[in-house]
Amino acid sequence: MSDRIVGMQPVDVRFPTSRELDGSDAMNPAPDYSAAYVTLSTGDGHSGQAFAFTIGRGNEVVVEAIRALEAGVVGTPVDELLGDMGEFSRRLLYDSQLRWLGPEKGVMHMAIGAVVNAAWDLRARIEGRPLWRALSDLEPAALVDLVDFRHLRDVLDADEALDLLQRAAPTRVERAERLLAEGVPAYATSPGWLGYSDDKLARLCAEAVTDGFDLVKLKVGGSVDDDVRRCRIAREVIGPGRRLAVDANQVWGVDDAVDWIRRLAEFDLFWVEEPTSPDDVMGHAAIRSAVAPVPIATGEHVQNRIVFKQLMALGGVDVVQIDAARVAGVNENVAIILLAAKFGLPVCPHAGGVGLCEMVQHLSMFDYVALGGDLDARVVEHVGHLHEHFVDPVALTHGRYLAPAAPGFSTLMRPGSIDAHRWPDGAVWAGEGP
Amino acid sequence: MSDRIVGMQPVDVRFPTSRELDGSDAMNPAPDYSAAYVTLSTGDGHSGQAFAFTIGRGNEVVVEAIRALEAGVVGTPVDELLGDMGEFSRRLLYDSQLRWLGPEKGVMHMAIGAVVNAAWDLRARIEGRPLWRALSDLEPAALVDLVDFRHLRDVLDADEALDLLQRAAPTRVERAERLLAEGVPAYATSPGWLGYSDDKLARLCAEAVTDGFDLVKLKVGGSVDDDVRRCRIAREVIGPGRRLAVDANQVWGVDDAVDWIRRLAEFDLFWVEEPTSPDDVMGHAAIRSAVAPVPIATGEHVQNRIVFKQLMALGGVDVVQIDAARVAGVNENVAIILLAAKFGLPVCPHAGGVGLCEMVQHLSMFDYVALGGDLDARVVEHVGHLHEHFVDPVALTHGRYLAPAAPGFSTLMRPGSIDAHRWPDGAVWAGEGP
Repeated sequence: MSDRIVGMQPVDVRFPTSRELDGSDAMNPAPDYSAAYVTLSTGDGHSGQAFAFTIGRGNEVVVEAIRALEAGVVGTPVDELLGDMGEFSRRLLYDSQLRWLGPEKGVMHMAIGAVVNAAWDLRARIEGRPLWRALSDLEPAALVDLVDFRHLRDVLDADEALDLLQRAAPTRVERAERLLAEGVPAYATSPGWLGYSDDKLARLCAEAVTDGFDLVKLKVGGSVDDDVRRCRIAREVIGPGRRLAVDANQVWGVDDAVDWIRRLAEFDLFWVEEPTSPDDVMGHAAIRSAVAPVPIATGEHVQNRIVFKQLMALGGVDVVQIDAARVAGVNENVAIILLAAKFGLPVCPHAGGVGLCEMVQHLSMFDYVALGGDLDARVVEHVGHLHEHFVDPVALTHGRYLAPAAPGFSTLMRPGSIDAHRWPDGAVWAGEGP
Repeated sequence: MSDRIVGMQPVDVRFPTSRELDGSDAMNPAPDYSAAYVTLSTGDGHSGQAFAFTIGRGNEVVVEAIRALEAGVVGTPVDELLGDMGEFSRRLLYDSQLRWLGPEKGVMHMAIGAVVNAAWDLRARIEGRPLWRALSDLEPAALVDLVDFRHLRDVLDADEALDLLQRAAPTRVERAERLLAEGVPAYATSPGWLGYSDDKLARLCAEAVTDGFDLVKLKVGGSVDDDVRRCRIAREVIGPGRRLAVDANQVWGVDDAVDWIRRLAEFDLFWVEEPTSPDDVMGHAAIRSAVAPVPIATGEHVQNRIVFKQLMALGGVDVVQIDAARVAGVNENVAIILLAAKFGLPVCPHAGGVGLCEMVQHLSMFDYVALGGDLDARVVEHVGHLHEHFVDPVALTHGRYLAPAAPGFSTLMRPGSIDAHRWPDGAVWAGEGP
């Protein structure tokens, strides 16, 4: 008898990052980086892990949403689940009663993403390969089968996606070799949190340069005068030869965004990130047009491939920022990467939080190997927090992510970290529970 | 000392509607209409009720999301909460940690909607007036204060919204009188569920005509040949002088939608509803342009005012279908109604489910009294199920909703109904619990 999924166990893990204002920005002044973490277990003793990322309160809601998916997963033969990941993803997305809670957005979608990603981790572990390699070795037709094209076909259909992948297939091997030798470029967000003092900003920018980062990002959107001062400090420290990006975390309306970006344009911005609501495709297009040639980046809060489709097709975005843990997992990110390839836009993933760097590096590496293009046009966010809680943490050298070699999706959290940070009963939260 | 909110109690209530295929459509074959129902209680013994609507599994996730809002509500002075409902709504929407779970979409947004609507029910009960009247009597400036314009200003700002309301203010009294005399027109969805036989369809269409309905809606999108046959039956029964609409519940991509609608156009459709993903503003605009002059309707799954803004501004919709329980409550629906008024589009609310008719009738009546226009251009969905569970059920006569007279938002469910349908321990669910 074939092996089956015998368990799907979520756990609420939270890190008290708000105590130091790590991660503070104009929309999110005091986050506690958290994971709605899930383990899929098989009868033969294999397991796969992944998580949705949240910033504290409400993490328990995502945990509850993961529980709601259990009936569709536990009991499934492992071969059936892992052998057709497109079908598995669609089964979760099209449970008609659960679909009502989105559709394909918010808490339920993040929970589906965690479960789909845990299944990918399980598959890569069983195959004994890192996820980026497991994905990159799939035939173009198998990659196309991962994607739900139902609401994409007016812009990208399966045939065109297949063609994009097939054209890049013959040169995959040489790109994988280059990736193993060079890694992918990272950029540094740690210096620029909104809650940091000017001195700390300057010191951390200098450290980023020392560490080999070529691009530093600052949070903006609190006060334009403060932002001008902080951009000036950062630009002076990193010098004219390195790149500076800013991130407004959605706080502006269209007109505010245009005015603010014009004030900051003197600092030669590499991109302006999340200038307005992630739901506002039309607003992004209007802003981008008004501030051209300042590039616009967005995506970490874009709910699904359908909104990404429109952002690209309507000219709302220059830089596509996928997130490993907001959309419905690897499958939907493959769809978004294919859309970006069609439009010739660079995919520069959002990361940070807890474990987002660990996951998303694999997707960026898959993107390079499977679709080609300029290796250095992909710049993956890096934040230096919380990596110590993972069994296979990211490895950076000279501002580049090195390709992971360990099997899986780099999602396995240390048991001791889970125990200590479990909400509300972990030792870190003693006395702060509900 | 002023009275305070002393309790916010959610309960998971589910009705086993899937046993009869009531409510079946192309995307939702077997729904169990459910409510994540919440009661706000004050120290002085007042209470307000409202709910998010779901179709079964996952209702417990919305209940958990309502619990996550409790800390921001319980303990608030009642005067402070009810005296500035704009601020109360913003406080819930901009809790930065919870906002990450949307932002402003999906489970968390529906939960906020339930709590905001419960507060409106409480306020109207304390005032001793039906909600439509309480809202319609507010000064234009007070109505504008309810709305969060942050991500709307490029299309509608507070000044223009104020102007729309002020222009209609002098004639409010005469419209309220006409509303009390005539009610608002309803349309009938009960005949057309996808799971019903042709005979049942024909019989229920005939009954709808007898009951005075001028517009009947059929679910479509399973098979185009079936849909042609079912539209022919419905058109023959209701005759050429009445109106026929169809609803695809999002199953089509853009090209499918265009082909399918062209096949059905011979039946003189009053609108085609949800032709594609509610997230696809661009897709709606493309479909609408390709099938003109067939009108396109959407909105029941549109996540928030920002997507409605784009649907209207980019020409994706002819008929705006608000839902009382998907967006962030009365406040956000006031924003959407103001947007529709700016574009001169009729607001024809989605209803049905459990309790949606009870709630949304108030919003349609507010729309007419506060903003004017053609009374009969507003057609409110009506489905004949589950009204018996409410203390103040809708009252229809000759196919029109009569204006409610009882205080509140008509959201109070009978205690016996809650007890019997409570998931998983109510008598109706005996033996079917998890």
